[in-house]
Amino acid sequence: MLLMQLTRFTDFSLRTLIYLAIQPGDEKVSLQRICDHFNMPRNHLIRVSQRLSQLGYVNSSRGQKGGLTLARKPSEINIGQVVREMENQLEPIPCEDIACPLASRCQLEGILGAARDAFLDELGKYRLSDLTQNGESILHFLRQPAYA
Amino acid sequence: MLLMQLTRFTDFSLRTLIYLAIQPGDEKVSLQRICDHFNMPRNHLIRVSQRLSQLGYVNSSRGQKGGLTLARKPSEINIGQVVREMENQLEPIPCEDIACPLASRCQLEGILGAARDAFLDELGKYRLSDLTQNGESILHFLRQPAYA
Repeated sequence: MLLMQLTRFTDFSLRTLIYLAIQPGDEKVSLQRICDHFNMPRNHLIRVSQRLSQLGYVNSSRGQKGGLTLARKPSEINIGQVVREMENQLEPIPCEDIACPLASRCQLEGILGAARDAFLDELGKYRLSDLTQNGESILHFLRQPAYA
Repeated sequence: MLLMQLTRFTDFSLRTLIYLAIQPGDEKVSLQRICDHFNMPRNHLIRVSQRLSQLGYVNSSRGQKGGLTLARKPSEINIGQVVREMENQLEPIPCEDIACPLASRCQLEGILGAARDAFLDELGKYRLSDLTQNGESILHFLRQPAYA
């Protein structure tokens, strides 16, 4: 449980979206290729792709020629929105879980909530297309044998 | 590992500082009293108080009449600073740990770093004294039998 560190789930989601965004054309990308590139456990990627698909970020097709493609343009995918939707716990502090006796009379929760909003608002300034401006360079790099 | 959730260590640190700040006078507060109030494991609180003491936020004395007191005025303790100092991991995403092939060509780390800074800057607007403005009310509440 680290301050402001994304869950692995959200982290993989963002990397998957970036990877799909830098593909040339509408080429489908197999789960295996994504697993290999990012060294992600396959069962994690399956959960990530299911959720991204439910949320309308990717199209997913099965079978030998199946794979993932982006369902929206990179310029239409807001990074802050992705993080809000993928993270299931956005409360900064578990006041109720520990039954804190200060609860309701303490201002800490409100202040941390404001800080969380500042974090998400900052991410909300960016779209997936902002993350892949140097897509050509990334793609070239990914094709190098060491990373094949 | 949850997004923007403080570590338990930092969480307990902030609660301990709040609790000390609302004490009347310069009364020492025993670790046991703090443990009881917040239902904190004693070994966690020992680590928290050692670190707070190292950083100059509290004075700690041993023995039967020992305990903790604030070493600075609440108006001189910045919440953003406490969080920065208590959290030992402020990198938003472990790019190197997973040996991500996008690393150094990806802008995600920079964007998440900016979001982290926005989070900490927001916290930096507050001092401990801002969190305990209604200290009287908190103290009254803490003295009620249900929380004794």
